[in-house]
Amino acid sequence: MSRILTGIQSTNIPHLGNILGAVLPAIELSKQPGNESLFFIADLHSLTTQKEAAQRINSVNSVAATWLAFDFDTQKNLLYRQSRIPEVCELTWYLSCFTPFPMLANAHSFKDKSERLSDVYTGLFTYPVLMAADIILYDAEFVPVGKDQVQHIEITRDIAQKFNHQYNQEIFVIPQAKVDESVMIVPGTDGQKMSKSYNNFINIFLPEKDLLKVVKTIVTDATPLEEPKNPDTCNVFKLYKLLASETQIAEMRNNYVKGGYGYGHAKTALYELILSKFEKPRARYNELMNNTNLLEKELEVGEAKARKIAQEKLKQVRAVLGF
Amino acid sequence: MSRILTGIQSTNIPHLGNILGAVLPAIELSKQPGNESLFFIADLHSLTTQKEAAQRINSVNSVAATWLAFDFDTQKNLLYRQSRIPEVCELTWYLSCFTPFPMLANAHSFKDKSERLSDVYTGLFTYPVLMAADIILYDAEFVPVGKDQVQHIEITRDIAQKFNHQYNQEIFVIPQAKVDESVMIVPGTDGQKMSKSYNNFINIFLPEKDLLKVVKTIVTDATPLEEPKNPDTCNVFKLYKLLASETQIAEMRNNYVKGGYGYGHAKTALYELILSKFEKPRARYNELMNNTNLLEKELEVGEAKARKIAQEKLKQVRAVLGF
Repeated sequence: MSRILTGIQSTNIPHLGNILGAVLPAIELSKQPGNESLFFIADLHSLTTQKEAAQRINSVNSVAATWLAFDFDTQKNLLYRQSRIPEVCELTWYLSCFTPFPMLANAHSFKDKSERLSDVYTGLFTYPVLMAADIILYDAEFVPVGKDQVQHIEITRDIAQKFNHQYNQEIFVIPQAKVDESVMIVPGTDGQKMSKSYNNFINIFLPEKDLLKVVKTIVTDATPLEEPKNPDTCNVFKLYKLLASETQIAEMRNNYVKGGYGYGHAKTALYELILSKFEKPRARYNELMNNTNLLEKELEVGEAKARKIAQEKLKQVRAVLGF
Repeated sequence: MSRILTGIQSTNIPHLGNILGAVLPAIELSKQPGNESLFFIADLHSLTTQKEAAQRINSVNSVAATWLAFDFDTQKNLLYRQSRIPEVCELTWYLSCFTPFPMLANAHSFKDKSERLSDVYTGLFTYPVLMAADIILYDAEFVPVGKDQVQHIEITRDIAQKFNHQYNQEIFVIPQAKVDESVMIVPGTDGQKMSKSYNNFINIFLPEKDLLKVVKTIVTDATPLEEPKNPDTCNVFKLYKLLASETQIAEMRNNYVKGGYGYGHAKTALYELILSKFEKPRARYNELMNNTNLLEKELEVGEAKARKIAQEKLKQVRAVLGF
């Protein structure tokens, strides 16, 4: 039984790129029998960049609703908001007393910011310690991360090892980074990688009219309707391919090549595919977003379990520290 | 009604210098009607320098027992261990996201250490943020500090003001430093200022034999017993003067000046004065140290009240932040 822990950024409403590239693969992985997966919505981390309350509440809720909308098994795996387990903040203080200052000062993530230090808050400097606490509070063995986060897992290992060594006990499990090299690149409406920062994203949970409007903005070339088109250079087709069945893909490819099929047709087909493919998640997402009591209830399942793990670990930590 | 908050260092067993210079004046101040005093034993801070559990437990207990031994009014004023109110760690994370990095990097307390940075843990860098949380979590208005701590109160004010300004609400009371210029200097056994680091301190709670031994180590000059002595240059007399009544002081001064009175006599008189003057506190201290259940019970009074204040404030903070 391996415990896998994944932190979920909570500052944005998840878009199609996040869902195909991160949410669905993670949920797939969490269904494997030998694994227990913990997913936490990193809302404490969000305070380093996002100060506004209404924005935070909305994005945290929408992240939670997204994961729950995609058949997340709340019995087998844990989904929780980081801030609902305040034990992590207590552990962060303890760990900060075992984290050499230069280790944080030399971290890439901080060095990148050191040229405009006057704008940097301390939370941005110390967040690798909070991240270490996020991980070792739960005895996580594997942490799936992007390459840019590998150094933070190294820092986590260092801190945990220092602590274990100080007290000559295996209090903390030493976690391992799991770098997934094959992250799916989902194109945005302009053909670049879909990203909140490029403002080229598709929010699949939008009301139908708004969703159609966004799909219509996908950039295409000026080939007239009658002429044959190259599907492999078309942003609409690229997105369609990520969602459609083999038969559907072959059919659209054929339409492109034979001519007399316009980009408007392709966009309508993509829009309809999104609606049909995500019919259930869209309904569930909106149900949860319109009924935050229900959302709270779903989250409480994981949060109760997470808190229990956290409290047990913290009890051990307190005992060894003499608190 | 002014709320005064005092942090108590918890790494050492309080000695006579601490008791006369800090404990008794603070307890005196806390008895003034218009004041409500909060005293916290800064055990979370102790982790920056003290890693060993048994040592921490022992020193924290002895600090608590000392304060309780000197007629501390646990009904009117609050005495609590910082670590028993873990809300302070949560607030520390929030505040760290409102603390400019350069403000901590430029603090004297950190700059003093920056030449041997490799030995510095992050906790030593961020502890002014924990200190800010210690203060503003409880709406403290006044914080009695030494001159070396004034900058940390400035940092606290800055953080609290930044936070209030961000949310356009008076969430936090802006505290004021209260610098007491007239701190009593108690000489140690070697005539220097009594201090743990000079190893020249008198622990008044020692068993009688051990206490006598320590008093006997007070450094005196070689004037023979028969000759007159100068009381005003004698370490024994200086200590005696701090504890004795006017009559007792006049009597000993007379003995010194007239001759035929040895330093041994003076030391015995000092030892007996300590025993009689601190008879009750010695008994109470030992009762509490030998019965930690009783000590816990005494501390729980203040800790329950402190936690209630902390939880209410944190609820406000969470609401405004969107947690």
